[in-house]
Amino acid sequence: MAYRPKDTQERIIHRLKIAKGHLETVIKMVADDRYCIDILQQLNAIESGLDETGKVLLEHHLKTCAVDAIKKGKTDEAINEIMQVFRKSK
Amino acid sequence: MAYRPKDTQERIIHRLKIAKGHLETVIKMVADDRYCIDILQQLNAIESGLDETGKVLLEHHLKTCAVDAIKKGKTDEAINEIMQVFRKSK
Amino acid sequence: MAYRPKDTQERIIHRLKIAKGHLETVIKMVADDRYCIDILQQLNAIESGLDETGKVLLEHHLKTCAVDAIKKGKTDEAINEIMQVFRKSK
Amino acid sequence: MAYRPKDTQERIIHRLKIAKGHLETVIKMVADDRYCIDILQQLNAIESGLDETGKVLLEHHLKTCAVDAIKKGKTDEAINEIMQVFRKSK
Repeated sequence: MAYRPKDTQERIIHRLKIAKGHLETVIKMVADDRYCIDILQQLNAIESGLDETGKVLLEHHLKTCAVDAIKKGKTDEAINEIMQVFRKSK
Repeated sequence: MAYRPKDTQERIIHRLKIAKGHLETVIKMVADDRYCIDILQQLNAIESGLDETGKVLLEHHLKTCAVDAIKKGKTDEAINEIMQVFRKSK
Repeated sequence: MAYRPKDTQERIIHRLKIAKGHLETVIKMVADDRYCIDILQQLNAIESGLDETGKVLLEHHLKTCAVDAIKKGKTDEAINEIMQVFRKSK
Repeated sequence: MAYRPKDTQERIIHRLKIAKGHLETVIKMVADDRYCIDILQQLNAIESGLDETGKVLLEHHLKTCAVDAIKKGKTDEAINEIMQVFRKSK
């Protein structure tokens, strides 16, 4: 069963692949003894990118699975899952 | 010129490669239409790992480059760089 | 119209008042020229407390207003509001 | 002994007092059963303000106490303290 329409899925995969490529660059920067501050800025950029991707996924989740669960009366389970993700995200 | 002793460098590269492997798993999870909440938890774990790696790098930077710069009187430059990283990290 | 049952409301007010008292202590610490690191640790503690209180409020919101809105078909408005809070919280 | 020049100190106290006033407003909003999302947005704003104030304090600390400690050879203590604040701040 597909939870995500093809375009959302492709957009998320595209963003994650960019993060992966970015991470490969950072690994090379460390191996090449590049300046720490430059590496830290790249790491921050990757984290922001993943964070943004997580929000796209969360929004999609809320609009599909969570709404379905709530309409089926599984409100508590749906909210507990969302809060788990929220609690760990900081 | 090497900024990082071999063991710190290897430890950082090791952590970044783990994050990269983890990210490949997440890309596969999205492609396989796995449950959003499971994917979000994996994404959070990757972000925490990268964050932790950034702190190892920052600590190393403070102990080496930043201390050197301060001893050479380049205090303002050193602190501005650190604050730049800090400002973007949240 | 009351959105929050009395006990949740009181719990949230209690936490916010603790944060306020804590903040007054920090203001005094700054006025008394206390050590920056000690002040920073207190500030971090206040931020964690507010963050935690925000999560109690969010969970309550999801369980009441958001679920009601979704059941009434106002799904998009409800989710956009949640995502707005989420986007600004990091 | 004063760690902070009067203007930095006053600027920090000014910001903290604004946050305190803001927090009092939020307490009143909760007591008045105002809409959760509006309260959450105010809470986020307070957290951002405190975070920003923390950065002013940290920058000041780096420029004064930390640089002094490093020049006196107390590098490890200085860096450990900074990293403790960093580690707790996320």
